Amino acid sequence: MSGEQSVPGGPGDGSPAGPGTVRPGGRTARTRAAALRAAEDALIEAGFDALDLADIARRADIGKTTVYRRWGTPAALVADLLLDMAEQSLPRTETGTLDGDLRANAGLVHKTLTDPRSGALFKAVITAAACDADAAAALHRFYATRIAEWAPCVDQAIARGEVPQGTDASEVIRAVSAPLYYRFLVSGDPLDAAAADRAARAAGAAARAGAYAASYDHP
Amino acid sequence: MSGEQSVPGGPGDGSPAGPGTVRPGGRTARTRAAALRAAEDALIEAGFDALDLADIARRADIGKTTVYRRWGTPAALVADLLLDMAEQSLPRTETGTLDGDLRANAGLVHKTLTDPRSGALFKAVITAAACDADAAAALHRFYATRIAEWAPCVDQAIARGEVPQGTDASEVIRAVSAPLYYRFLVSGDPLDAAAADRAARAAGAAARAGAYAASYDHP
Repeated sequence: MSGEQSVPGGPGDGSPAGPGTVRPGGRTARTRAAALRAAEDALIEAGFDALDLADIARRADIGKTTVYRRWGTPAALVADLLLDMAEQSLPRTETGTLDGDLRANAGLVHKTLTDPRSGALFKAVITAAACDADAAAALHRFYATRIAEWAPCVDQAIARGEVPQGTDASEVIRAVSAPLYYRFLVSGDPLDAAAADRAARAAGAAARAGAYAASYDHP
Repeated sequence: MSGEQSVPGGPGDGSPAGPGTVRPGGRTARTRAAALRAAEDALIEAGFDALDLADIARRADIGKTTVYRRWGTPAALVADLLLDMAEQSLPRTETGTLDGDLRANAGLVHKTLTDPRSGALFKAVITAAACDADAAAALHRFYATRIAEWAPCVDQAIARGEVPQGTDASEVIRAVSAPLYYRFLVSGDPLDAAAADRAARAAGAAARAGAYAASYDHP
């Protein structure tokens, strides 16, 4: 697995390292692992449009019947891949300040979207979600997991008095990612390190100004 | 045409009203208008995956050969539709304050993405852009046009002293849209009026704090 849920050489990058990253044994688990790795490769090479279950069976060296019985459709296979990506996702970085934590988060998203493999993978799963409700539900669960992993850095900033009480922690984390995904999927503007820094800085500044505090939503 | 580039009953909604909205006459222009309207309907009904030039010819009541000769591929037809959407796009609203202008912008994006027809259309053209380089280039030009239309509201706020000199006007406009597109395409969190207000408020607060000023990027 690569991307937002992983770093090269770290837990979750496919090497059998780290507690919680080893797949439970057994043939069923090995079959799933092989199919998901093949799906990831196929999505990176050719996108969701070209995803084909017979091709996945060939790439993973498992029976076509097994693949069809277990997943049924390309979208269901993508949904299972997203579940696995969420399960393998990395713990957040803690730097001790809100700006530092948000910069670490923005850096991870930036790295995920600009890496050729993980960038192509994320574009493919987002495309799958635009075409299929089950893939969309799995995509939303993946991001809910990632947002929940990072939101505590905002709660800690509230406790330290860096941002107002009642600040919506999840919304601050979404605000860091949003400008980067907007460039990636929508506007095509450069997705560089400056854009990542600016995303983190703007989310922090808006949070300090109380823009994500509940009192604003319900005055 | 519907969505971010138009309002019901306003210029650009398909009624032959308003300067700059009337298509030049002639058979070629009429053929293009019919094909683009058919493409829009087809994209809304079934998405980019299902877009088929023969079906467009039938829907538009024009020759299949004409459609194939003029556009060649579904992606090229989408690119031409995006060019037309940019040409028909609405002027910005001016309210006299940065917060008011950003709220108007957020409201327009919110309306575009939550309207069943224009929401489906935007999802389809963004999917097309994820699959095809020419469609992506056309999508990027469409958003560059929309961002350039709204950026002057930030320049006016700089002139009024509401935000620091050197604030990147385009980046403030992108910051208003980004959280809404993130919900729409990525996280699936509710895309409601509160989200639109929060997007406008956060972009304004970050701009006032200097988060989009050039001095931050090159300290």
